[in-house]
Formats: sequence, structure tokens, C-alpha cells
Amino acid sequence: MFITLHAPLDMHLHLRDEAMLETVAPLSAETFAGGLIMPNLVPPIETREALLAYKERILKASNEQNFTPYMTLFFKPTYTKEFLESIKDELTAIKLYPAGITTNSEGGLSGFDVEELRPTLTAMSELNIPLCIHGETNGFVMDREAEFASVYAMLATNFPKLKIIMEHITTQESVALLDKFDNLYATITLHHLLITLDDVAGGMLQPHLFCKPIAKRPEDREALLKVALGGHPKVMFGSDSAPHPQHAKEACGCAAGVFTAPIALQVLSELFMKHSTMQKLQAFVSDNAQKIYSNIKISPKLVTLEEKEFIVPHHYGEVIPMYAGEKLQYSIIDIK
Amino acid sequence: MFITLHAPLDMHLHLRDEAMLETVAPLSAETFAGGLIMPNLVPPIETREALLAYKERILKASNEQNFTPYMTLFFKPTYTKEFLESIKDELTAIKLYPAGITTNSEGGLSGFDVEELRPTLTAMSELNIPLCIHGETNGFVMDREAEFASVYAMLATNFPKLKIIMEHITTQESVALLDKFDNLYATITLHHLLITLDDVAGGMLQPHLFCKPIAKRPEDREALLKVALGGHPKVMFGSDSAPHPQHAKEACGCAAGVFTAPIALQVLSELFMKHSTMQKLQAFVSDNAQKIYSNIKISPKLVTLEEKEFIVPHHYGEVIPMYAGEKLQYSIIDIK
Repeated sequence: MFITLHAPLDMHLHLRDEAMLETVAPLSAETFAGGLIMPNLVPPIETREALLAYKERILKASNEQNFTPYMTLFFKPTYTKEFLESIKDELTAIKLYPAGITTNSEGGLSGFDVEELRPTLTAMSELNIPLCIHGETNGFVMDREAEFASVYAMLATNFPKLKIIMEHITTQESVALLDKFDNLYATITLHHLLITLDDVAGGMLQPHLFCKPIAKRPEDREALLKVALGGHPKVMFGSDSAPHPQHAKEACGCAAGVFTAPIALQVLSELFMKHSTMQKLQAFVSDNAQKIYSNIKISPKLVTLEEKEFIVPHHYGEVIPMYAGEKLQYSIIDIK
Repeated sequence: MFITLHAPLDMHLHLRDEAMLETVAPLSAETFAGGLIMPNLVPPIETREALLAYKERILKASNEQNFTPYMTLFFKPTYTKEFLESIKDELTAIKLYPAGITTNSEGGLSGFDVEELRPTLTAMSELNIPLCIHGETNGFVMDREAEFASVYAMLATNFPKLKIIMEHITTQESVALLDKFDNLYATITLHHLLITLDDVAGGMLQPHLFCKPIAKRPEDREALLKVALGGHPKVMFGSDSAPHPQHAKEACGCAAGVFTAPIALQVLSELFMKHSTMQKLQAFVSDNAQKIYSNIKISPKLVTLEEKEFIVPHHYGEVIPMYAGEKLQYSIIDIK
């Protein structure tokens, strides 16, 4: 059996910069039609010039593979309506990080004062610019996302016309919010559909499965699987594929991030097939995102997979992927 | 101010064997009067000959520092009363591992059938040999110890004369058991008094703080601190100091264990001082153990500490200790 996906999209992607960008951009550009590009470079993407220059570098690194980088800005409460209007056509979304919550997020927001945020978020609502949020508090690691639920609720209530994307959700609590607030949406990663904290720290410690938000409990994974496999219309695939060089992962003080971009479609095919929900994969990896991000332009791309053994490379350049050296059941056999 | 501890005891200690034994035994032997030696070598200590030979190797490696290794056997339900009687004088306790639960525990118990265990546990009761247990199920990593509570309760009820030591407890649930069953006791490590999962995986991933049982939630640490600092008479210090060479810790698939033996008394002094419970430290590091293990002989040793900066070495041989390179507030200034 063949599976042909139309314009698969990765709505949460870290492409980094310089040598790492050269390594990873062609991999995403090969199998995806587009990706929402995270702005947490050093320094973060906060100006029109930085955004356009980064987009240019991504396109160059992508080797003309018909891939659209959907660009984002790093959220600042000082963005004015005039600025946002001027950049609107270059921009797909704005990404909000609480300060210090993950890799290169030091310049993020240190509190959620609704009046401080009102001008920028109102302007975003009016201009139909979605707000993507890394939703974690700085509390105990297993509670951070659940504790953030009240912030999501507060923002969703105060800005009912603003599309808010809860990025890389990992908990039952976040899943429950989807049906409570019309304007809350979510991305889910590949790895959070597959692993729990048990896989990271239940046997030997596995630095290549260490990520933020950290993988949670079995019942959380079940809740994520239910909406992803069920094709819940407010849920999109976003890999949060986050490359680090091997030496930064296998070290005392290992960096957070799982690298999945080049294996994502193969593993998703296996997962949806296993659960007899293959008919929902197209919605999860593209159609839902197209509806939620009504402002995006789609590059035509057809990716065909077949049930055929694929051995994951041990590394892509300096980066060790998830399932390095392991055997997957689906291969990509054609890309048009 | 000086603090002089009488015969400090480490009632849960991994000394390993061969080169590692040569590295770590002198460190424990220097500052402790004795330690309960874990039997999970490869192969595990299961015979009189293996036990006596291992004791000999430990004494040799300890450089005549007036240290008593309290020897243990690796629990087998096939130990007969005759065998236990014959070995009783060489033995301080028997350590029970569920199969595969931690380093070198593959030969452990795969189930808790009370009738299968009855002959050996009855003999141990009659001979006053304590049973030390690594109490974890093979469930989700954060639940394993709490799930084991029913096994502790079942054993405590069925063998009311057997002293059962819940080793390296990490949860509120285990602390609560201490006051529910007369014959349940516990050891607590240094690191579980200090860290939670946040320290292991809340920032960057910290392999040198990865251990089994994994560090739990803040409220669990609070419960442990309460009984340790309060000098609860059923609670003893057991470092679970578990050395691995650096390459096995800083790797993909990091081994579990924190190495604390050479810094334990200094850090405990700081901790008890900070909480104004210095008057309870002697009970925690020696007196409670002497009462609980009524069968042990105590080597005389006086260890004096002073509030004086101590920089933890970056490594001891191939082993990286907890707080490597960091500054502690207490130093050992005299050992007699």
C-alpha cells in the first residue's frame, strides 16, 4: 500500500543558523512543503530585516526544494500596530516565550500582565496574526505546562479574536483546553506521541530523548494520541525538531531537544497505521494547519510512503536523530 | 564551632570491585566507621565464600583505616535456614532487588509470592537478620516507589518479627509507612534530601544527578527532610553512593547513580546546620542505625568538622562526585 500526503507541513520547526542550518534545512525542505520557523536564534528574530535575512538564508540552504518557510517573530510587548502592519505580509505568526524557559529564550516575557500585552495582542487580533506560545511556568518540571493552563485561559478570554496556538502540548490539561476555548489551538510533536518520562529516565538516562517540555506521564501521552490520531481539527503536527550537535547532547548538562524532522513522516505513517487511523494523517500533517493558519500559502508537494524498511542514519552531520540506527517500517519512496 | 560525630555509618553503600573498589573504598573508609555493603556485583554475592572474599578485598582496599564493612547477601528465596545459620555471624543483612530494577539486579526477584518467600523470611526473622529492599515496581518511573508500598505493607504484615529496611526512600508514601508498621525502617540518601527531578531534568539534563530511584517532587523531598532532620528513630543515613566512571555517566544511555561518599558528612553538616537541627545529626548518621541493626559491631571513630570552605575535587580517579568543583561550607578537620 502507498500513502501519498499532500503538502505535509511542520508547524513548529527549529532550523537554527549557519552550519547547523546548512545541515538541517535541506532535510526538512525535502519532505515537507513548509514549516513554521522558530525565531529563537541568538539574537532572536525581532525586526523585519532580521526576519527577511533569515528567510533568505533558509531558502538558500533548502536547495530549491520547493519548501516554504513560514516566518515568525520573537514576541515583544513593544511591537506596535504600525510595525505589525508593515511586516504582516512577511510574517505567519509571532512566537511568545516565557523568559529563560528553553533554548535561547532569555529575552522572553517575564510576566503576563494583560494590560501590558493588550496593545500588541489587540493589534495581532485585528491583523489576524496568530500567537504561538511555549506554555510553561518556571515551576516543578512535571507541572510547568499544567500550571500554564491559567495563562492560556486568561489570554483566550481577554483576546477572543486572537488565534492562540499552544505549542508542543504534552499534557491532558492542555488537551482539555482545546474544547474549552474557541480560539485555542495546538501543535503536537512526534516524540510526545511516542515517549513518556519513562523513556527518558526510566531505564538508563537517554539524553537524545530529553526535550522541553519534558515528556510526561502515560495518561498524558494517551490524551495526545487521542486528538492527533482522531484528527481533532484544532490540532496540527509540529515536530519541534531541535538539532544540537552530539557533543552538546551527550555531556554533563545536556541541551534540550529531539531531532525528528527527517524521520517524522515515516514514523507518523507507522503510528497512524498501527492505530488504524491512517485516514486522519492528512488532516494532522497538513489540512488542519491550512485551515487554522488561513494566511499561509501552500507549496505543492506530494510525498509518497510505502511499508518498506528504512534504517535511520546514525547521524546527520553532527546531529543524532531519534531512532538513530534503528529500523522503521515506512520509507518515503517518491516526492513530487 | 566544631562538630564531632561518633562513628558515622553509611548504611547503604556501593563499593563495586577491582579498580573501582580501589578508588572508592579508601574514601568511605576514611570518614565512616562502617558501611552496609551492597551485594550487587557481577555475579552477585550469594555464597559464604563470595561474601568472605569480598569482605577481604574491601578491608584490603580500605588501607587499614578502621572501617567495618557490614556485609550483605543478594536475596534468593532458596536460602535455607541451615545456610543462614551457618553464615549469620558474617552477615549483617540480606538485600532484596526486584529483577532488573537497577544496576546489576538482573538476578533479582520477579514476583512477591508470600508463600514462596515464607521459608527464607521466617528463617531471617528467627535469626534476626534484617531484610533490605530496593522498593520499586517496574511501573512509570515517578510512580514506582509509591506503587511498591503495598508490597512493603504485605511483607510487614506477614512477617511481623522481620526487620524490613526500605532502602533509599524518596516519597511521601514511603515516609508514611514508617509510622504504620512497627517493623519497617528506612535509609535516606544525601542526594534525595537535596534534589528533586527539577535538578536532574528541569534545566539542562544532569547525568551526574541521575539515580534510581529517580529524585521525585518537592513535596516528597520535604517529607524526607522532615524525618531526617527530625532524627526520626526509624530513619538512617545510607548514601547509596554509587560510582560509575565518567564515560558511563556522560553518554547516550547514562548509568544510574550519584557519587557522594567523600562529601556526605560535610554536606550533611551544612544541611543540618542550615535547618538548625544539628542536634539530630548524630542520630541520623549513626545512633539510629546502631539501634536498628542491633547486631553490628562499631569501630571507634571520631570525625570532626568545622565551618570552613572545602572545594570538592573535580574527580576521584575516574569518578565525578556530586558538587564536583563546587565550594562546600564544612570541612573535615580531624579523624581519630
